[in-house]
Amino acid sequence: MNQLQLMQELSIQGTSQIVLLVIDGLGGLPIEPGGPTELEAAHTPNLDALAARSACGLSTPVAPGITPGSGPGHLALFGYDPLQYEIGRGVLEALGIGFHLQPNDVAARGNFCTVDGQGLITDRRAGRISTAECARRVELLRPIQLPGVQCFVEPVRDYRFVLVLRGEGLAGDIEDTDPQQTGKAPLPAVARSAGSSRTADLVDRWIGQAARILASQAPANMLTLRGFSMDPNLPKFPAVHKLRAAAVAVYPMYKGVARLVGMDLLPVEGELPADEFATVRQHWNDYDFFFVHIKKSDSAGEDGNFEAKAHVVESVDQALPGLLDLKPDVLVVTGDHSTPSLVKSHSWHPLPILLSARTARRDPVTSFGETACLAGSLGQIRHVDIMPLAMAHALRLTKFGA
Amino acid sequence: MNQLQLMQELSIQGTSQIVLLVIDGLGGLPIEPGGPTELEAAHTPNLDALAARSACGLSTPVAPGITPGSGPGHLALFGYDPLQYEIGRGVLEALGIGFHLQPNDVAARGNFCTVDGQGLITDRRAGRISTAECARRVELLRPIQLPGVQCFVEPVRDYRFVLVLRGEGLAGDIEDTDPQQTGKAPLPAVARSAGSSRTADLVDRWIGQAARILASQAPANMLTLRGFSMDPNLPKFPAVHKLRAAAVAVYPMYKGVARLVGMDLLPVEGELPADEFATVRQHWNDYDFFFVHIKKSDSAGEDGNFEAKAHVVESVDQALPGLLDLKPDVLVVTGDHSTPSLVKSHSWHPLPILLSARTARRDPVTSFGETACLAGSLGQIRHVDIMPLAMAHALRLTKFGA
Repeated sequence: MNQLQLMQELSIQGTSQIVLLVIDGLGGLPIEPGGPTELEAAHTPNLDALAARSACGLSTPVAPGITPGSGPGHLALFGYDPLQYEIGRGVLEALGIGFHLQPNDVAARGNFCTVDGQGLITDRRAGRISTAECARRVELLRPIQLPGVQCFVEPVRDYRFVLVLRGEGLAGDIEDTDPQQTGKAPLPAVARSAGSSRTADLVDRWIGQAARILASQAPANMLTLRGFSMDPNLPKFPAVHKLRAAAVAVYPMYKGVARLVGMDLLPVEGELPADEFATVRQHWNDYDFFFVHIKKSDSAGEDGNFEAKAHVVESVDQALPGLLDLKPDVLVVTGDHSTPSLVKSHSWHPLPILLSARTARRDPVTSFGETACLAGSLGQIRHVDIMPLAMAHALRLTKFGA
Repeated sequence: MNQLQLMQELSIQGTSQIVLLVIDGLGGLPIEPGGPTELEAAHTPNLDALAARSACGLSTPVAPGITPGSGPGHLALFGYDPLQYEIGRGVLEALGIGFHLQPNDVAARGNFCTVDGQGLITDRRAGRISTAECARRVELLRPIQLPGVQCFVEPVRDYRFVLVLRGEGLAGDIEDTDPQQTGKAPLPAVARSAGSSRTADLVDRWIGQAARILASQAPANMLTLRGFSMDPNLPKFPAVHKLRAAAVAVYPMYKGVARLVGMDLLPVEGELPADEFATVRQHWNDYDFFFVHIKKSDSAGEDGNFEAKAHVVESVDQALPGLLDLKPDVLVVTGDHSTPSLVKSHSWHPLPILLSARTARRDPVTSFGETACLAGSLGQIRHVDIMPLAMAHALRLTKFGA
């Protein structure tokens, strides 16, 4: 029995309420050896006071050394082992731009590329054309029609776009057409199983028409497709945990992953932490579980902007009383992954976590930071452990075995 | 997807360099309650200073309570779950004496034993004959010939030897001939599957000839064979991690395990830690990964010699600057398993570990020892986590999922 099955078996309904506050990219590193991390440098009196009355620890998103993308990082926070429940690249890309995937859609990530007179790829990223140039070519591709299916083409960023085919009987079990190196022609779409041969055939027809349209559009005069995939039809979070669950997020990717696991999406007026907490307050009586996602800490980390990242954390801290006033039975504060300004990207480092509840076991931690949390009573856990702990502290899990 | 597959998928080439320094049997215990362990008693200013600027922790070789042999201990260090990737006893024994196994060889561990007039075993270890007596009998067995295969017999130690059969179509799926108790006759070699019936038949013929030769050689007047096995054909370390990998070791077993996973073996002049570090220096520009194995700490622990074990650690510490001068991007120091002098054998206790890298998250640990490392930022990990962490800190792993 895997962990989700165990949750489904043990979870019970109740009146307790859980808030999972995800500060994206929260974990960090010192800029100077021995110095503070972004979180440690930030002035966070409310988080520190909360840590002092909470169980603290560190949580590894997927496994030691593994840096997760936003999809796997959030799946793990929601209790889904991301090594077991994989979401295809095409689906993630569609979620990232807010495309409303339907259960039978097949999505692929597309790259515009440059080919020479023989059709061999000379630049796999088409000279990194601008997003505007990408959007212009996407417009040219939208009129392409295929028998019995709808085609959607959406720009993403730079040379990247999404292709979605919608219709009965489609399947995503198709090889990438990207040969992964220059000097080769794009590959045909090859079905990996009999069930996807019709879809592969349709994709090839689409590519054929696209190639003719793009021929005059150098440097983006051809394209490759990869990560063909469908909604993985995950067990639904509200059913597994017997929670009425809502997501409060501003950016498409996080709304998309929340929708994929069956959470309701709540509208937010504004983009500040205080705005998101206000949304929680408005809907406080309608849900048992709120996933609240703060994006800009991650963006600042990716920009390598230590100060800006610390400032985002401070803005969360300042707004925090508005959330605490609601008196959630269980409040968890952590992030989906670390994004140290030092490395300007997602990283594998464990994240500080605090869990506040009447049943939380206290520890010596009196400030919320990477080093302080080493002494916490949660120890070092993994993200997939967080939902079972939150459910337990919400008194929403029955005993395992008699 | 298992961890090795994940590493293979996520690993990328780069220019960073990793050193894995394995001090065999490093973990220890106090002789007197409350006293220091061997490592804590040793004067190790260089390791302590390194610990102060590293991420520290404790690592369990296989699983809590499990004492590994050298084979599983090192497999785990190299990222192979030893419960999943098993190496047969015959193969391990052959590796331990430096026998160059070929992919189709079948190896078995042999024990000389004593049988009575009815052929029933009276001593399973032949009165623990000396290694010299063992070698003399091995010489007698070498002339045995079998149709279509080559036979190799090599002494190991005391009453133990190795038998290797080399030829086409051999298989190792054969039951032990050791009945595991006295008063019984050695068993015939029984094939566990159809594919190994010819091999079992050849083994029985070999045993028949050996029995006639040994009849006059009491107390070692018979033998038993067990652990029939072949090279497990493990996924190769350099391919999985995309690292040019070299092993610097003095003892056959460690060279053997390194060769089994596809590392290059580098010649060492001398047996001191400084000699091994000199080898690393010589080949520094030719490899991305160096496994450096220090043997004598384990031997001292097995002898129950607390002082000698501490002294070996001190000799590593004194030579350490020669390794640090090379400025590896990632340096991991730990051991394959604990060998406390108190118990005079391998043990299951977790080992202190330090990981030095620009991206290592600091912690309050300022000395390298079993108790100090409890406060480390690595927490308590397992040996199979070490390579993913080393690869991550070497910036040689891409993101998992988008």
